[in-house]
Amino acid sequence: MLGSTHGTLTTDSRRARVIACGERRPGPAVHGRVDDLDVGGRPLHADVPDLSRFFRPQSVAVIGASDAAGRPNTGMTRQLLDWAERVGARVHPVHPTRPAVFGIPCAPSVAALPEQVDLAVLLIADPLPVIGELAEAKVKFAVAFASGFAETGEAGAAAQRRLTEAARRSGLRLLGPNTNLNAFEHFRDDLTGPAIALITQSGHQGRPVFALQELGIRLSHWAPTGNEADLESADFISWFAEQPEVGAIAAYVEGLKDGRAFLLAADRAARRGVPVVAVKVGRTETGARTAASHTGKLTGADDVVDAAMRQYGVIRVDALDELQDTAALLARARPPLAEGVAVYSISGGTGAHVADLATAAGLSLPSLCAAKQAELHQWIPEYLGVANPVDNGGHPVGDARGRKIIDALLADPSIGALICPVTGPFPPLSDRLVRDLVDAAEETDKLVCVVWGSPVGTEPAYRDVLLGSSRVATFRTVGNCLRAVRAWLDHHNFTASYRSPFDEAPRTPSPSFRKAAALMSPGRQLSEHAAKQLLRAYGIRVPREQLVTSAAAAVRAAAQIGYPVVMKASGDRLAHKTELGLVRIGLTSASQVRDAYREFNDIARYEGVPLDGILVCQMVERGVEMVVGVTHDELFGPTVTAGLGGVLVEVLRDTAVRVPPFGEDQAHALLGDLRGRALLDGVRGRPPADVDALVEVILRVQRMALELGDHIAELDINPLMVLPRGQGAVALDALVVCR
Amino acid sequence: MLGSTHGTLTTDSRRARVIACGERRPGPAVHGRVDDLDVGGRPLHADVPDLSRFFRPQSVAVIGASDAAGRPNTGMTRQLLDWAERVGARVHPVHPTRPAVFGIPCAPSVAALPEQVDLAVLLIADPLPVIGELAEAKVKFAVAFASGFAETGEAGAAAQRRLTEAARRSGLRLLGPNTNLNAFEHFRDDLTGPAIALITQSGHQGRPVFALQELGIRLSHWAPTGNEADLESADFISWFAEQPEVGAIAAYVEGLKDGRAFLLAADRAARRGVPVVAVKVGRTETGARTAASHTGKLTGADDVVDAAMRQYGVIRVDALDELQDTAALLARARPPLAEGVAVYSISGGTGAHVADLATAAGLSLPSLCAAKQAELHQWIPEYLGVANPVDNGGHPVGDARGRKIIDALLADPSIGALICPVTGPFPPLSDRLVRDLVDAAEETDKLVCVVWGSPVGTEPAYRDVLLGSSRVATFRTVGNCLRAVRAWLDHHNFTASYRSPFDEAPRTPSPSFRKAAALMSPGRQLSEHAAKQLLRAYGIRVPREQLVTSAAAAVRAAAQIGYPVVMKASGDRLAHKTELGLVRIGLTSASQVRDAYREFNDIARYEGVPLDGILVCQMVERGVEMVVGVTHDELFGPTVTAGLGGVLVEVLRDTAVRVPPFGEDQAHALLGDLRGRALLDGVRGRPPADVDALVEVILRVQRMALELGDHIAELDINPLMVLPRGQGAVALDALVVCR
Repeated sequence: MLGSTHGTLTTDSRRARVIACGERRPGPAVHGRVDDLDVGGRPLHADVPDLSRFFRPQSVAVIGASDAAGRPNTGMTRQLLDWAERVGARVHPVHPTRPAVFGIPCAPSVAALPEQVDLAVLLIADPLPVIGELAEAKVKFAVAFASGFAETGEAGAAAQRRLTEAARRSGLRLLGPNTNLNAFEHFRDDLTGPAIALITQSGHQGRPVFALQELGIRLSHWAPTGNEADLESADFISWFAEQPEVGAIAAYVEGLKDGRAFLLAADRAARRGVPVVAVKVGRTETGARTAASHTGKLTGADDVVDAAMRQYGVIRVDALDELQDTAALLARARPPLAEGVAVYSISGGTGAHVADLATAAGLSLPSLCAAKQAELHQWIPEYLGVANPVDNGGHPVGDARGRKIIDALLADPSIGALICPVTGPFPPLSDRLVRDLVDAAEETDKLVCVVWGSPVGTEPAYRDVLLGSSRVATFRTVGNCLRAVRAWLDHHNFTASYRSPFDEAPRTPSPSFRKAAALMSPGRQLSEHAAKQLLRAYGIRVPREQLVTSAAAAVRAAAQIGYPVVMKASGDRLAHKTELGLVRIGLTSASQVRDAYREFNDIARYEGVPLDGILVCQMVERGVEMVVGVTHDELFGPTVTAGLGGVLVEVLRDTAVRVPPFGEDQAHALLGDLRGRALLDGVRGRPPADVDALVEVILRVQRMALELGDHIAELDINPLMVLPRGQGAVALDALVVCR
Repeated sequence: MLGSTHGTLTTDSRRARVIACGERRPGPAVHGRVDDLDVGGRPLHADVPDLSRFFRPQSVAVIGASDAAGRPNTGMTRQLLDWAERVGARVHPVHPTRPAVFGIPCAPSVAALPEQVDLAVLLIADPLPVIGELAEAKVKFAVAFASGFAETGEAGAAAQRRLTEAARRSGLRLLGPNTNLNAFEHFRDDLTGPAIALITQSGHQGRPVFALQELGIRLSHWAPTGNEADLESADFISWFAEQPEVGAIAAYVEGLKDGRAFLLAADRAARRGVPVVAVKVGRTETGARTAASHTGKLTGADDVVDAAMRQYGVIRVDALDELQDTAALLARARPPLAEGVAVYSISGGTGAHVADLATAAGLSLPSLCAAKQAELHQWIPEYLGVANPVDNGGHPVGDARGRKIIDALLADPSIGALICPVTGPFPPLSDRLVRDLVDAAEETDKLVCVVWGSPVGTEPAYRDVLLGSSRVATFRTVGNCLRAVRAWLDHHNFTASYRSPFDEAPRTPSPSFRKAAALMSPGRQLSEHAAKQLLRAYGIRVPREQLVTSAAAAVRAAAQIGYPVVMKASGDRLAHKTELGLVRIGLTSASQVRDAYREFNDIARYEGVPLDGILVCQMVERGVEMVVGVTHDELFGPTVTAGLGGVLVEVLRDTAVRVPPFGEDQAHALLGDLRGRALLDGVRGRPPADVDALVEVILRVQRMALELGDHIAELDINPLMVLPRGQGAVALDALVVCR
């Protein structure tokens, strides 16, 4: 019997740990943290590799280097040589027969390298055979260019597993396979200030973010992770979060290798206040399927991925232009000094339009106070609106008034960001406006955003003045500007109140656990009675009820419980009790109880369903029906779902999910995600429901997910009756299927 | 008493017509169509002015022309002279004292003009005094530049009304005030093919659309409508829809002057298959308020505006970049030959990502058939996915295979559009790819879209090759591309099945009307019994019920109706019957009926509410509760709302609205807008509801809205019990408040 003793679960915890960490390098770091596991055997800390020598190796071996015309390896060798020259690294070509490549002497083998190298670039079709040699030569990192692994099907996946295993044994950290040399491109070194660090599973998809350098936005690193046989996105997130030059991490993710590793990495970034902006493919079935076939990774259930990202403050965006604009803003903007946004333009139409879109995007446009409006009216004609949006009518931007207006807006304590849409460039006005904005931005800690509305984009005011400023955030579309500003405010709000749930995750089983484990029955569905005992073991209230096996006992039970009662057939193979007629509610007399008992036995005989008895239960009414459950996600393991019961969950599927570990704040946030949330506050004159008790049930269910998660295939409390405030919540029925 | 006779309503219909058409030019066109009014007195045809001479005047008078340095009028005079020279129009400056302006002799007054002119441009602060003179001189059109009218408050609005009235009396058609000379800018005349015609209430907001010409997209007209004292957006939509060179109408709308005129204009465009793409400010309260203060127009309830646009096929977008991209595509793309979209890229990552976003945007990516995949695999390596998205792995685009792949995709009968995202330009591959796409687009009627993903936008492949093609639709963001393609398919689907509801709108009162009108009671709320009689007059089923005034009569009524019955107090000042205890359901005996009768009278006495009797009603159960009602919108008049009753309407406000006139298709579409729509199909084993009967009720309520709309302040059927299929729908309660 699985998991019925503590000892068994400990063995299983080890298994879980091996699964979760199995593809990571063993060594003192992991061994020294053998206790850093939660009660379910999942790691509580990311094991962050030191990637300094990967990104800035002092010496590089190029296995398969070439200078033969027309060969792809020649281009890559050339690129590495150029790069090495720029950053001052030594390059050692390795080739069994060539004496030299581009005039640099070749080593015939890895063993023959003239020095211990930091990084080996593997331009060979099958990297597996050299992994051992590289390890022996104490090479720290390797990049495997070859494709044909997990992205091609099962045979490729098996080859990739061998590569993973070889890297794990050797201690070498491997990037790829199915990757490229994006990490060693020509990064502009003349740009200053906080940079974007980029992670892409598909090299090509990082290209537009890399191109941001041409618009003056600094990039510090690019990790094209490919198939992630060893090093994965999470490793780079964790390491980038600790680099002082990194202002934001931009990630393009098709699938995750390990959900837990991703959460731990996001947690590290959240603790350090480093924003992570991510595209995660898999909004739709089509996308998920295509992405899986592209990199051979799991995309995960999208609502779960979405919840996990929000829990750990990862800013999810849809398209690459949003990734660029949001990451660029978050990397460079200082923390907000106020939540309010001012919209300032030379046209009332523009102001009204952008104010409308800004409000719809969840931004707050405070009305400027009377004194500030009077100040603005020194320079802006009296008939124009300056409450916010601020419309200057055009002319004031052409002279000294322009800068004064900008400074006055930035000085307002309610304003944290100034958004200035330049809808159409009109050089006599807009050139001066843009110049004033750039100058003002140099002298303020507040955020200055310009939306350059011209679709052309060759105008000097845009190319030379705006893009030349590292203090003005320049956008091409209002939508991207507003999304990025909202993300900037959200990020700082999130990190300001962030408490890592890993710090509070349980490491040892609760007293409930032993009792609960004894109830589990691998591979089987528990009877309703047993399922409720499991809930009770975790302190979740169930109705007063007795399991009886005779009509007389049923009548006695009903008398003890108090009329009216509910009767339900109980059995471990029973589903659809209601449809079978095996539930009766509102029984008010002994004769009704006796009749029901008889009928249930008749039905069970007729339908051929064995009963282990009949439940006589207290009748609980007058609450809000909810569902709370545990679902297994292929990427994140057991997750906790809650939703509104009855017609809302059936028709609108109004449920929300959270990935453990999470705290009380996220349990409340989960309820906030429900469209029918207001039902809990009382409608139609009903009293407000006991939300605290509901949150407590959600947290207790999380505890079950953490402790029993690997043993639960399915757990559903449906309905959980949430009583009026102060009266608690009662699980009226529960379904538990053991794994 | 208002509206209680047919005669009264006819008088009122005239009033309604005057309101609806009051600000339009009287003349033969309107007089000739005096019968073209619906039963509510609203026009059934747009009265479209001939604007040819407005946009292409042969002669123009410039009132207030100037050539004095530094005066704004000088710039405008110069602009007009330049424009006139380009298009071959004669310009006559008018100024009381100057002998000449820019060397052109001035007329001292309008009366002294050397010829009858088509257009007068009024560069003077107060245009009102010259309107009469212009009319006498038989000037057809005038543009009033001056501001300070409705946008500045009540005094300005009064001045604007005088201007409107003067224009109406004179027969002159006026653009503005508070507008500019955007109509007479420098339009590129070297661009061919279908053009965008642009309407903007704020001139500045049209600037980026106008700038599309720099990207090779043709613009034919620009109407900056300003305050719309006379000519309004609807006039331009109607007229543009009839111009052969116009491929799409792009509109930026802050507020509408007349909802009905807008619908009629949209209807004209829909009949002719001309797409109208519109930004309509007012998504939020903030935006609506700001826009109203900017142009002094009504923004309308946003959900009603949204419904009206969808009913008439107007494509609503949020931001100006979406307006540009969607209008440009719709203007130039030929009708779709298939619904399917193929995504084609040089990277599997790009393909997966864009396929994901495309599917999320509602596009269909059909899997290519085996034969097509085999064909593609002639040129694309076997291990790459070509089912759709099609990933070529890069290299095939560098040689002759590239064009073959594109042609093979375009030849597939399931594919109507090819979307090729060029994520990062890599000239050795992407230059050839782009050239092949441009060439292929010349030889196909299918849509070819390229998303140029580089944020830089100075690359020659983009600037010179893509923008040089009028056949490839080029975008800078995936989001805008997908939205535009979806809009293109939606537009053609919409127009293919469009039947104008104006053709079927009732012109004469229904037989129900006389009966209904007799029940109306101006300014008062009808009793439940009277409200139900009103519904019955329009053929809407109500429960069998009797209004009784004695306990004995109640018992007799119950026996006739059949037990169980429902009893409700009835009175014309009764609200919140349930809360007062004046409703009893499920009464099964004479004694219960007698008791209820007594209690109701006691309560009514105690609460001081006069009753006109007590209703004994048939009890109707086992249906889906809906609400159906009429609401008055400030812009569109009476509208019809329907929603799901009970908790769905209370907590989620799950309702949808339609603007009359609409047909059965839109009544079904209304139900499709409800999030809880599935409830009508039967959930939890309940039978499907009688949707046809529900649609019939919605259409009958529309008839009430059309015939009685101006006399109804509020009408709510709540609940309407929709019984199982084939059994109809019954209005269990109704609230009617007369105006």
